[in-house]
Amino acid sequence: MSTSVAGPEIERLVQLLARLPGLGPRSARRVALHLIRKRETLLAPLAEALRVAQERILTCSVCGNVDTRDPCTICSDERRDSTTLVVVESVGDLWALERAGATRARYHVLGGALSALDGVGPSDLNLSGLVARVANGGVSEMILAVNATVEGQTTAHYIIDLLTDYPVKVTRLAHGVLIDRRSARRSFALAPVGRPHGSLSVGRKRLSKGERDAACNRSL
Amino acid sequence: MSTSVAGPEIERLVQLLARLPGLGPRSARRVALHLIRKRETLLAPLAEALRVAQERILTCSVCGNVDTRDPCTICSDERRDSTTLVVVESVGDLWALERAGATRARYHVLGGALSALDGVGPSDLNLSGLVARVANGGVSEMILAVNATVEGQTTAHYIIDLLTDYPVKVTRLAHGVLIDRRSARRSFALAPVGRPHGSLSVGRKRLSKGERDAACNRSL
Repeated sequence: MSTSVAGPEIERLVQLLARLPGLGPRSARRVALHLIRKRETLLAPLAEALRVAQERILTCSVCGNVDTRDPCTICSDERRDSTTLVVVESVGDLWALERAGATRARYHVLGGALSALDGVGPSDLNLSGLVARVANGGVSEMILAVNATVEGQTTAHYIIDLLTDYPVKVTRLAHGVLIDRRSARRSFALAPVGRPHGSLSVGRKRLSKGERDAACNRSL
Repeated sequence: MSTSVAGPEIERLVQLLARLPGLGPRSARRVALHLIRKRETLLAPLAEALRVAQERILTCSVCGNVDTRDPCTICSDERRDSTTLVVVESVGDLWALERAGATRARYHVLGGALSALDGVGPSDLNLSGLVARVANGGVSEMILAVNATVEGQTTAHYIIDLLTDYPVKVTRLAHGVLIDRRSARRSFALAPVGRPHGSLSVGRKRLSKGERDAACNRSL
């Protein structure tokens, strides 16, 4: 017996819903039924919202965020600090930082992280846009809010190398568990955080121990 | 700081997605991002499938199933046994039975179960349609595949009472854990399964112990 219960239109809806993250075939059926039951209050508005999203959502040409305008809401917000750039891997990271109210700076979305295994090279990321923003001037600090994964850290090292020639202060998010202030600072100072050989570049200058501590303990 | 990260169109999409069963605000954001990222391969087809569903999905006037045709695919399938009706609470139950390939009979969807607490009375269920189908003749057996909840069982008793005057055999799904065949049959026979006073009505006749066993052990 075929598993097709209803007409092909409902089956297609279920199949598409099952491709959403977090939904399997079973929960997709539940969602489809829920939508069909709430046709006027949920299905119709959702269909309309998806149509609008499909037609109007753009990728911001400045930072890589998604929005219905270009430049996006954040890039065109004059009250934001345009001298600091927070570099994130994905739009999801940007949203998370915004929801947390973590910073009033502007963002730059890379669109991924360097990964030899997945075949993601520098040309696949929005790095040229980042260098261009720094080269245009006006950016004095860059916070690398990449993930604490091998890929994220590789990307961070790559960006630090890329920006060696520009007078921009590069800092990174603190990570790890803070035991107490003094011992934590000591262990941060000992750990090679900035580059493989244990320092962060700021322009052509190496960071002093104190500066490195400040960078490492920076908390967004 | 407002939690609005992107434009109002994306926020609206996230809010609508968060109303789907199984998705919360956080996973709705993840789904929205996934949709925006896969605009061509997922967002566009899903928007189209929802539009089609909104325009074309009907409730079957015979059985209460949802489909894009009326009568629905199952009701208009001539190969199905039209003498047996499986009575279910919801379309979800019908889909589950169909996916399991449980029966080649036809269905009748009640659209809920009697519940004094939720204010669901007989007039809220598709009971008149059920009686009409039986009254029109051609139905010799009815399997009450309602849930093993207080509401489901109340509904079952109500239907049994309603159909007392019609020459139709009413059976129910077996439930409970089968320990071994003989002891299980004995415990089923002892338990008051059919009606509060321990019998199933078939027409005006009470079931004998053997018939009741058969009805209780019927496995879809």
